[in-house]
Amino acid sequence: MAHALALAARGLGRAWPNPAVGCVIVAGGRVVGRGHTQPGGRPHAEVMALHQAGALARGATAYVTLEPCAHHGHTPPCAEALIAAGVARVVTALTDPDPRVSGKGHALLRAAGIAVTEGVLPAEATAANAGFLKRVTQGLPFVTLKLATSLDGRIATETGESRWITGALSRRAGHALRLSHDAVMVGAGTALADNPDLTARGLGANHQPVRIVIDSRLRHSPQSRLGQTTRTAPVWLCHTEAAPVDARQAWEATGARLIFCPATPEGHVALPEALRNLADLGLTRILCEGGAQLAASLIRDRLADELALFGAGSLLGAEGLAAIGPLALRHLTDAPRLHLLETHPIGEDSLSRWRFS
Amino acid sequence: MAHALALAARGLGRAWPNPAVGCVIVAGGRVVGRGHTQPGGRPHAEVMALHQAGALARGATAYVTLEPCAHHGHTPPCAEALIAAGVARVVTALTDPDPRVSGKGHALLRAAGIAVTEGVLPAEATAANAGFLKRVTQGLPFVTLKLATSLDGRIATETGESRWITGALSRRAGHALRLSHDAVMVGAGTALADNPDLTARGLGANHQPVRIVIDSRLRHSPQSRLGQTTRTAPVWLCHTEAAPVDARQAWEATGARLIFCPATPEGHVALPEALRNLADLGLTRILCEGGAQLAASLIRDRLADELALFGAGSLLGAEGLAAIGPLALRHLTDAPRLHLLETHPIGEDSLSRWRFS
Repeated sequence: MAHALALAARGLGRAWPNPAVGCVIVAGGRVVGRGHTQPGGRPHAEVMALHQAGALARGATAYVTLEPCAHHGHTPPCAEALIAAGVARVVTALTDPDPRVSGKGHALLRAAGIAVTEGVLPAEATAANAGFLKRVTQGLPFVTLKLATSLDGRIATETGESRWITGALSRRAGHALRLSHDAVMVGAGTALADNPDLTARGLGANHQPVRIVIDSRLRHSPQSRLGQTTRTAPVWLCHTEAAPVDARQAWEATGARLIFCPATPEGHVALPEALRNLADLGLTRILCEGGAQLAASLIRDRLADELALFGAGSLLGAEGLAAIGPLALRHLTDAPRLHLLETHPIGEDSLSRWRFS
Repeated sequence: MAHALALAARGLGRAWPNPAVGCVIVAGGRVVGRGHTQPGGRPHAEVMALHQAGALARGATAYVTLEPCAHHGHTPPCAEALIAAGVARVVTALTDPDPRVSGKGHALLRAAGIAVTEGVLPAEATAANAGFLKRVTQGLPFVTLKLATSLDGRIATETGESRWITGALSRRAGHALRLSHDAVMVGAGTALADNPDLTARGLGANHQPVRIVIDSRLRHSPQSRLGQTTRTAPVWLCHTEAAPVDARQAWEATGARLIFCPATPEGHVALPEALRNLADLGLTRILCEGGAQLAASLIRDRLADELALFGAGSLLGAEGLAAIGPLALRHLTDAPRLHLLETHPIGEDSLSRWRFS
């Protein structure tokens, strides 16, 4: 199952709207088939692994990180494929929360006389499937906040200098983080200030995440790097009714997708609804790369799930720009709490990953 | 030598003004004597280890983390003690930079026919002796900055709530950090706001670090916890000529030591001179626990050597109090740089140690 989970991870960022599943088929103590969900979500992991195993699948054991699907969607159900291949035993980590599947995949297998073991490494599988599970159960994507700060929590000097605070290895890990998410998201302020292209570079990637700007009034220009590269990778803009019609038309002409969202009383994009829209469009994992205001809003609205904190060995002082905007806390006990997943050095920096409680 | 270095570490915070040395005596493949510098700096490590080894020292090898002393100070020279005990070989990590010793200890041993091997684990010994070495070579103490912050670099909420940001294990490690330093230092603002006692608690300590307040005008009251406990552990106050005479007298009456320092043009205690005074008084290792202004001043004046950063899994937002005051940087390339020594989880927090470059 650990091997199947490692295979599943290869599909993260590319399998949406489907879960990134891994499957390992073992016959006579040997691995005879391995598969993971392919880009775009199809073929499924089981089909890939069964194809590799061929006739050796007969009488074999299949380890799958998620309950095999039981419904006829774009593909025939994987439970039927496992039955047809003559697999003797299926071991799964999780029951699929999707109401079209939930429990039916396991039942179908058992009805066909296959031995089914459920709940192997469920915590690891839950963590790996966090995006898919959150989308199916809450209608929201899993949101990772990425911060690259000095040791005193600053993302730029007083004058806005920010390139580069962290080192080359951290930035490379940042690009890998983009690849393991379905989409990369920034606020309009960051888009305007940095004119970023938000692609994953230097890793030989053959796909790119969706690039999202939260931009209520569509201030970001279609002449920007994002506007000029909508064919390289999708660009989605979340705006409100305050966006001028000509800006909407100009952006649409670039091939960007406009996502209309309700506004907060202050005129910002209402983030819960925006993220709900993004989940409806299939996104399961979004990486938010700032700025400070968007990060603070996601935290205040309890929409952030994980924090990836790259800490550089430098200090910028109190005049530097804060990584997180105002949180409007009244007491220390009101502060959002996070628990540490891991911390380790990365090049000359440190990387710690935290999960919001 | 690794064992001798571990023994040496036991003396940190208690051996000043002497170096915290470790000594292991090995005869016939067995450890027959172990010693480290005793509280107050005497007896020396070699004397302790020789005493334990007794007659077994004859023909043995002594591993010492620093060149044995060769001058008659408060105690007879350790080089002579090693010779008198009949040790056959001495292995050392470092040459003592103290001009009264430097090279003479090694020479004395060699002149007596003892085989001497120098420079074993010098990097580790240099790190362990950083305070002693800096005092002898630069006339300044080694300064560790301790910060306990939220993940966005805040030490308190907007309203000043700061108890507690970090967890119990971090606070315990903070007390251990106090014990491994000769003195704990805070600025007047922190002393006024927190009324701290700055002792090391909960660790069964039988000694306490010197407690220092940098307080140009002696605003901190003799009625404070520090003022009321000067008999428990020393309290030293660094002030300028701006301190009123009655405040000086009141503090002197408590038994505190007043250290007169020159002022900066802004009327603050001039830190380079203050630290020079503290080194003259014998201090080799000082732990600065804030506040933000004192930390920033130490950084700006390039007086900080190490940073111990306890990061709690919480976020306080941009309105929170910054851990480090203004640094007046003009460019990102002017930012003080630090390199990572280690990072690991500590309870629910993370601890990273950084060395200023």
